[in-house]
Amino acid sequence: MAFRLSLEVYWIRKRCSLSRFKLKIEYDGRPYIGWQRQSYGPSVQNFLENAVFAFSGERVEVAGAGRTDKGVHATGQVAHIQLANNKFDAKTVMKAINALIRPEPIVVVAAEEVKEDFHARFSAIERCYHYEILNRYAPTALYRGLVWHVKAPLFVEAMQEAAHCLVGHHDFTSFRARQCQSNSPEKTLDQLDIFRKSENRIVIIARSRSFLHHQMRNMVGTLALVGIGKWTSCKVSEVLAARQRSAAGPTAPPDGLYLTSVKYPNES
Amino acid sequence: MAFRLSLEVYWIRKRCSLSRFKLKIEYDGRPYIGWQRQSYGPSVQNFLENAVFAFSGERVEVAGAGRTDKGVHATGQVAHIQLANNKFDAKTVMKAINALIRPEPIVVVAAEEVKEDFHARFSAIERCYHYEILNRYAPTALYRGLVWHVKAPLFVEAMQEAAHCLVGHHDFTSFRARQCQSNSPEKTLDQLDIFRKSENRIVIIARSRSFLHHQMRNMVGTLALVGIGKWTSCKVSEVLAARQRSAAGPTAPPDGLYLTSVKYPNES
Repeated sequence: MAFRLSLEVYWIRKRCSLSRFKLKIEYDGRPYIGWQRQSYGPSVQNFLENAVFAFSGERVEVAGAGRTDKGVHATGQVAHIQLANNKFDAKTVMKAINALIRPEPIVVVAAEEVKEDFHARFSAIERCYHYEILNRYAPTALYRGLVWHVKAPLFVEAMQEAAHCLVGHHDFTSFRARQCQSNSPEKTLDQLDIFRKSENRIVIIARSRSFLHHQMRNMVGTLALVGIGKWTSCKVSEVLAARQRSAAGPTAPPDGLYLTSVKYPNES
Repeated sequence: MAFRLSLEVYWIRKRCSLSRFKLKIEYDGRPYIGWQRQSYGPSVQNFLENAVFAFSGERVEVAGAGRTDKGVHATGQVAHIQLANNKFDAKTVMKAINALIRPEPIVVVAAEEVKEDFHARFSAIERCYHYEILNRYAPTALYRGLVWHVKAPLFVEAMQEAAHCLVGHHDFTSFRARQCQSNSPEKTLDQLDIFRKSENRIVIIARSRSFLHHQMRNMVGTLALVGIGKWTSCKVSEVLAARQRSAAGPTAPPDGLYLTSVKYPNES
């Protein structure tokens, strides 16, 4: 009897509240102008919002944790949606979006119902990006737009040495795009690791609460100059200290960049 | 003087002989009807032969080690060409093919001059194939046509146990396509290993001097039935012993299949 009562209370509460879902999303960035909805081209956010509308009839924002640029990919973008109609469970939301968004290369890989105070962008405490380099003379046949092809042999140990001086709390003005909207150029970089995944594949992993616009791609472009031996690893400390975008290397292409995960409080 | 003479002898010999090149080739199999030139559609071989003609003016066969099927990929296909005009060195051949074959997703990743008795197909003593499975509920956004998506969780240990009984010299009739042109259904399978590359990626590696038509895909389709628990691993011995195609599992799709290397005598 008590069980039945508590079940009823649960359902009444559920009916009165909105449903909020956290979505883990994978996408191929090649066909899009980026994550964010814009008037001038197709965006990942827009296709997701259209799919949500198609099954729920609700025009809601799909709020993402990271506003990835044109051509940048994701294996672990996180977004949330809030629906007024609460007849859907998380698995139904995931299946409906995946069925309706086809053939776009955008897939919800996991979904769960979350509390109303969860915000994909503002609740995030860490973002992780991977950057994939194909390091060989011949271009790629299989992964065009999915890796950065660097012809000249890269010396990974020198790149790793250079990366060390970027880890920590710094003013990253030298690695910040002109159009960056962040309040401050100061960020804390928790990890910047470089390793050879296979004979000709190099991966760079970076973790931080948040990144400046183009920060990761500017760091990769700079590290590549160290890797080919044009700059010494010590030079990167000077580049950082210069606090001038012109002091650093070029912006690496979006092709090799993946938003791989976003972390929230109380997650392992 | 003696050096000069031997150099002249070298050049005279070189001018009289043909040039033969061994090419290591990577391609995305998605747009093609397969490796082999056919009248009914675009083939990898045909695009390569056109590129060779474009720079050399010679209509020669690009003879491949493995005749991969429609939609099957390669990271290490090997082929050879023989040119009457011997003014080209291996690096020039590689660069010329890569420049002229664009935008086709076919790339020569290595080239070397070889003796006239080298034959990419008949000299080969071992072929190695990889099969990539994406094992998770959600489909793939990034690797469509490049992996086989299996929704149901696969039990890798059971698949590996089942694979053991396929290794060795056997009559592989149960895993042979009806249209197979091999003289005998007997083959020696030197390796069949299955492992989890990451949380949701499973790789199957097979090595043999040669394979029957669809042998790898039929073995993978059968092992998948073991992986999902529909068949026990012991069942695969019975399937092999039955010597009937109908006894085995379905043919896995070409999407996940890659010809990764071909071995020749005197190679490490």
